[in-house]
Amino acid sequence: MDHQNPITAAELAERLGLPLRGDPGVRLHGVGSLTGAGPGQLAFLANPRYRAQLEDARAGAVVMRAAEAEGFRGTALLADDPYVAYARAAALFAPRPVASPGIHVSAVVDPSATVDAGAQIGPLACIGPRSRIAAGAIVGPGCVVGEDCEVGRDCELVARVTLVARVRLGARVRIHPGAVLGADGFGLAMEAGHWINVPQLGGVRVGDDCEIGANTTIDRGAIEDTVLEEDVRLDNLIQIAHNVHIGAHTAMAGCVGVAGSARIGRYCMIAGAAGIAGHLEICDRVVITAMSMVSQSIREPGEYSSAMPVMERREWRRNAARFRQLDALARRVIAREKDKE
Amino acid sequence: MDHQNPITAAELAERLGLPLRGDPGVRLHGVGSLTGAGPGQLAFLANPRYRAQLEDARAGAVVMRAAEAEGFRGTALLADDPYVAYARAAALFAPRPVASPGIHVSAVVDPSATVDAGAQIGPLACIGPRSRIAAGAIVGPGCVVGEDCEVGRDCELVARVTLVARVRLGARVRIHPGAVLGADGFGLAMEAGHWINVPQLGGVRVGDDCEIGANTTIDRGAIEDTVLEEDVRLDNLIQIAHNVHIGAHTAMAGCVGVAGSARIGRYCMIAGAAGIAGHLEICDRVVITAMSMVSQSIREPGEYSSAMPVMERREWRRNAARFRQLDALARRVIAREKDKE
Amino acid sequence: MDHQNPITAAELAERLGLPLRGDPGVRLHGVGSLTGAGPGQLAFLANPRYRAQLEDARAGAVVMRAAEAEGFRGTALLADDPYVAYARAAALFAPRPVASPGIHVSAVVDPSATVDAGAQIGPLACIGPRSRIAAGAIVGPGCVVGEDCEVGRDCELVARVTLVARVRLGARVRIHPGAVLGADGFGLAMEAGHWINVPQLGGVRVGDDCEIGANTTIDRGAIEDTVLEEDVRLDNLIQIAHNVHIGAHTAMAGCVGVAGSARIGRYCMIAGAAGIAGHLEICDRVVITAMSMVSQSIREPGEYSSAMPVMERREWRRNAARFRQLDALARRVIAREKDKE
Repeated sequence: MDHQNPITAAELAERLGLPLRGDPGVRLHGVGSLTGAGPGQLAFLANPRYRAQLEDARAGAVVMRAAEAEGFRGTALLADDPYVAYARAAALFAPRPVASPGIHVSAVVDPSATVDAGAQIGPLACIGPRSRIAAGAIVGPGCVVGEDCEVGRDCELVARVTLVARVRLGARVRIHPGAVLGADGFGLAMEAGHWINVPQLGGVRVGDDCEIGANTTIDRGAIEDTVLEEDVRLDNLIQIAHNVHIGAHTAMAGCVGVAGSARIGRYCMIAGAAGIAGHLEICDRVVITAMSMVSQSIREPGEYSSAMPVMERREWRRNAARFRQLDALARRVIAREKDKE
Repeated sequence: MDHQNPITAAELAERLGLPLRGDPGVRLHGVGSLTGAGPGQLAFLANPRYRAQLEDARAGAVVMRAAEAEGFRGTALLADDPYVAYARAAALFAPRPVASPGIHVSAVVDPSATVDAGAQIGPLACIGPRSRIAAGAIVGPGCVVGEDCEVGRDCELVARVTLVARVRLGARVRIHPGAVLGADGFGLAMEAGHWINVPQLGGVRVGDDCEIGANTTIDRGAIEDTVLEEDVRLDNLIQIAHNVHIGAHTAMAGCVGVAGSARIGRYCMIAGAAGIAGHLEICDRVVITAMSMVSQSIREPGEYSSAMPVMERREWRRNAARFRQLDALARRVIAREKDKE
Repeated sequence: MDHQNPITAAELAERLGLPLRGDPGVRLHGVGSLTGAGPGQLAFLANPRYRAQLEDARAGAVVMRAAEAEGFRGTALLADDPYVAYARAAALFAPRPVASPGIHVSAVVDPSATVDAGAQIGPLACIGPRSRIAAGAIVGPGCVVGEDCEVGRDCELVARVTLVARVRLGARVRIHPGAVLGADGFGLAMEAGHWINVPQLGGVRVGDDCEIGANTTIDRGAIEDTVLEEDVRLDNLIQIAHNVHIGAHTAMAGCVGVAGSARIGRYCMIAGAAGIAGHLEICDRVVITAMSMVSQSIREPGEYSSAMPVMERREWRRNAARFRQLDALARRVIAREKDKE
């Protein structure tokens, strides 16, 4: 994809602080994939598996490790981590939006709310009682900020985000459309055969630099707050129940569910559609693979799995039927071994 | 968390109909956790496991069972079910919102819609053709009520809820942001290599006192209605397909999926991310544990499971590989036993 | 359910091009189920299992295969595929909405956007910079169309749909409430212990006749586009990550998750809550059953499974415990066989 602001390879190398090989005067106006980029675009080679694609690359310049650049005849930017360098370069071509201060005429702002003069409130957005929007923040079209919320400096609520009540966002938090933060936690008690609601009186606290994906939900705490420490990254359609605590720099892929009062450490990676039960702890630097179920605390860093990969359906059916007999089968094997002794 | 309306322990005991021990004059203005509550707050002890925390509790009063109160020197409210009593007390400090009747100037109401004078229509809400909003109902900011819908007395659509068409809510139904009720069911027929839509002509019927979580979806029926009986409680990000019928008092945790025409009984508990196939029946009082798959009818009350818990990844890989050979393994064991005979 | 436009059985037979048996003058004004339809309604019998229900059917006419009609005394429309014929008939009674051209006074349209004079922009919708809305398209209440999007001819965005940026819809695409297309893909790189965002510069391209369910999310590509070919049908609460490519006529049920850069063939059927890992390929005409996990490419058409069905919890617990020992058990069986030799 092409963007504005053409820049020479030399300028780019200088802004990223990277050594350059080849033609410093190449003009770049965007980025592309190694196979798709044209002469005005920057590409990257991060995975050595794709090195053969370099042969036919038509990119104006390519970010790669010094070791890969041996024998490459094009223009190369050398980086220890080419993917990070690419990310930084791409951000130069396509910078994040900056607030255009002001409140759109169609937005509805409660008289008791405080909107900084440097904040942008988009069309058809709604800011509720006692909420505060800091300088540099963007509240996009159709967002609803409810009661007693705080949106920190340079946050971006892209569009149609809802903060229900008592949600406090640090600085530079980005929230994608459809996400709902601060809805009532799912707290119920059974009385005489009928459910009664347990009032959810806590809030949601989101640290600096967090990102929340589209249609993800984060409920507010029952008594204390649901907490995301800084730099937590959540993909789309994730459910974070009340009173969950997520440590800094933890990332979760789409469709993960975390039940109430779970406490997840720092630098964890939770792959797609994994499920984490309530009232347990996961220590720092734990990796959970896709669709796995964590039903007890994990106290050792490492990689954990439980989901079964597909096999041809008939084969699966036979094995699954045997699974129902697995305990009995094991008992028979053990009994035979005893017979033998 | 602290709230308005301070109240004495004696008044609280009277309003809840509970015996009091200790100082009847303690002034309470909110609730807190057993470890976090201060002198002006009410806490509760429901799980005997946490009894040791009573020692250091600074709460103004604590709700607990009479048996736990032996030797407790603070102020105690005695309840058979302390969690229920706590829920009732918390609701006194933080009552549910009451409708402020009127239609916000930014809302758009179709001329053929009927909004009771006692209902509240929030900012930027939209009420469509022939829909009816009853007294005491709150339609929050950004909600869209489509065609031929009914919102019953004292319902609360918190914010950005969508009722698409032919959705009828009983009394006191609460729906959290982003929920979509009454979208077209997923009805397709293949004709000459191309999908055609099967018109979805039914509606959605939701009984009194139901609660629907954030970003949950409930499709309308193909011919007849999708039905939730009274007091059904759904958490966030749940999918209820067309023609599903859910019995009274059943609760589902986040991320559950229920396929078309499934019929679920009363007083069932479906834990997080469980999946229920279509065209089957689950009887009353069935518990399904987290991430389990129900692919056939269940006719006996009880607890059912199928999801596997995580183990260290290497260990998992070995066992999963063996699972592919499980049928063959079982055959070998059986063959050996026959040899022996 | 009953609708307008009564029509005789003869007229209906003619419009659908089907043979008629029985009374050509029966007046029909809607459709119903075989057990529920009344004398003015059309029902259908597709599954021979339900043939016994014909006995008591009170429907004005029934669509069925010629073979089933033997001995049926009512009015029958004969079709090779009664479900398809029913779908066509139902669409006559309840036609899809047609655009009422015009821009609602409460909608906000950016001056650089282009709205065709034959398009309908509903209340409280928002059309952003440089986006184009074609003739016959309906943008329902509360929708947000962001930057550089294209909505093709006769598309329907039912309500509260969000197209974030660079989303291009072909003709006749239907999108249900809460769906979010074109949000940032989840692209992260770790630098010095902190995540940095990898700018997501691609778009989303959706072919003709696709349908996208409520609260489904489709992220835009990192460099190139995320692509749905024509006639792809997605149910509710599905996550499609960046750079995914879905072949024509593929259908996915609710709660499916597809990770980044997966490439799925044509005419595939992915059942509810299945998970598909990233960077793999699935060939044409693959069926994945509910809750299964695809973690490697599939190169043969066929049916694939991995999810385990529920069993009574105690039984499950014993078998699951044995599963942890499965590799050891298999080794013992093999060792015993070697002993014997």
